[in-house]
Amino acid sequence: MREEKLLRPGERIDDLMRSHFRIIQNPEKFCFGMDAVLLSGFARVKRGEKVLDLGTGTGILPLLLAAKTEGEHFTGIEIQPDMADMAGRSVLLNEVEDRIDIVCGDLRQSSARFGKAAFDVVVSNPPYMKESHGLKNPDDAKATARHEVRCTLEDVIREASDTLRSGGRFYLVHRPRRLTEIFCCLREHRLEPKQLRMVHSRPDSEANMVLIEAVRGGGAWLKVLPPLIVYREPGIYNEEIRTIYGY
Amino acid sequence: MREEKLLRPGERIDDLMRSHFRIIQNPEKFCFGMDAVLLSGFARVKRGEKVLDLGTGTGILPLLLAAKTEGEHFTGIEIQPDMADMAGRSVLLNEVEDRIDIVCGDLRQSSARFGKAAFDVVVSNPPYMKESHGLKNPDDAKATARHEVRCTLEDVIREASDTLRSGGRFYLVHRPRRLTEIFCCLREHRLEPKQLRMVHSRPDSEANMVLIEAVRGGGAWLKVLPPLIVYREPGIYNEEIRTIYGY
Repeated sequence: MREEKLLRPGERIDDLMRSHFRIIQNPEKFCFGMDAVLLSGFARVKRGEKVLDLGTGTGILPLLLAAKTEGEHFTGIEIQPDMADMAGRSVLLNEVEDRIDIVCGDLRQSSARFGKAAFDVVVSNPPYMKESHGLKNPDDAKATARHEVRCTLEDVIREASDTLRSGGRFYLVHRPRRLTEIFCCLREHRLEPKQLRMVHSRPDSEANMVLIEAVRGGGAWLKVLPPLIVYREPGIYNEEIRTIYGY
Repeated sequence: MREEKLLRPGERIDDLMRSHFRIIQNPEKFCFGMDAVLLSGFARVKRGEKVLDLGTGTGILPLLLAAKTEGEHFTGIEIQPDMADMAGRSVLLNEVEDRIDIVCGDLRQSSARFGKAAFDVVVSNPPYMKESHGLKNPDDAKATARHEVRCTLEDVIREASDTLRSGGRFYLVHRPRRLTEIFCCLREHRLEPKQLRMVHSRPDSEANMVLIEAVRGGGAWLKVLPPLIVYREPGIYNEEIRTIYGY
């Protein structure tokens, strides 16, 4: 489809540097960040698998995973109609309607909507911030992406558990400061953390992101991977980050 | 006291490289490892504070912390009579009977023995291994130090919680593979993880130790510190490790 027909005012098209994939974004609303990119590099999706993204936003995770993996089908659910519409137009732009579905809806109804144990893999880059009081406009796109206005961490984890088959894998990116809550909540919902990777800007800085793989019904044994250090020197990405981005 | 009078057959005296402190060890039984040294560098003990070490073994943690900090008093509890006796002789060797008590007893009775909320800080380098079946000699010193023969992780955490005052700090070194269980158990016992540090041999290797600070009744907010990398190159410690050891 012609690009101009797919773009709305304020939107732009960005190159994802993977298999010529591109994405429509609106800087006034929300653009994807490094967390989504790192999660797409951390998640393992095998040939033929079915994947669900809880809170897909611009559709960045289904797009990157469709570009990077041999997964058979990707579903992204997004509660904000304008974001879901934009993600759907990115799917048309890349002509991957056969591999990616964008659904406008409440992720808290995922298992009711898609069925229990319907997916091999679930991914999520959910809102990180618990405190939603004091927000000037709790309905705007940035607030919804960053604060737990429309869903809580437990909603995301419960739906991941319910929509995954036994042995299926859940990939989550979040803030390390909430790790205890994340681990306890995962375990309550029969998702056992199996791999964890801390992300640090520099070797001597605190972790500012954490990548987690949890397995539905898995046994208790966590592997802590080498730290992922983002910058080699100020402003220059490490080789691994460049590889994940596709530079 | 004369050194010869304090040594039993098979024992030797090692220099702790801190304030001229020394320790009696028996290589046939158990010698302290890097985990105890790293924990002594991670634990914050302030002037005047009272400290309990759950499962003190050779007494390495009270000795190192007495040498490194201004803590007022240190108690180490150890279930194996010969280890407790040896730790007690190390206290005499260093002439620190006024600052360190070694008690022979079951750590599972710590709060009953020392009282609730009796300490500002609790430390522990407990047995890491859950599987104790198949041990040839489950009563020997090495098995007791490494396997959960005489106490479980939950015993250690429960006693830490019960013996700590509100706001008191618990410092634990353990294996990362059990981190989920550790976090969930800490939280069940009102010990909130506040700081975590992963220990990796090299920047590109999995973590093989984890250092945790949890606060009795603390609020939920975890800080993940920079990774602690042990080796700069094969066989050569990083500067930070050398500083912790006191080289």
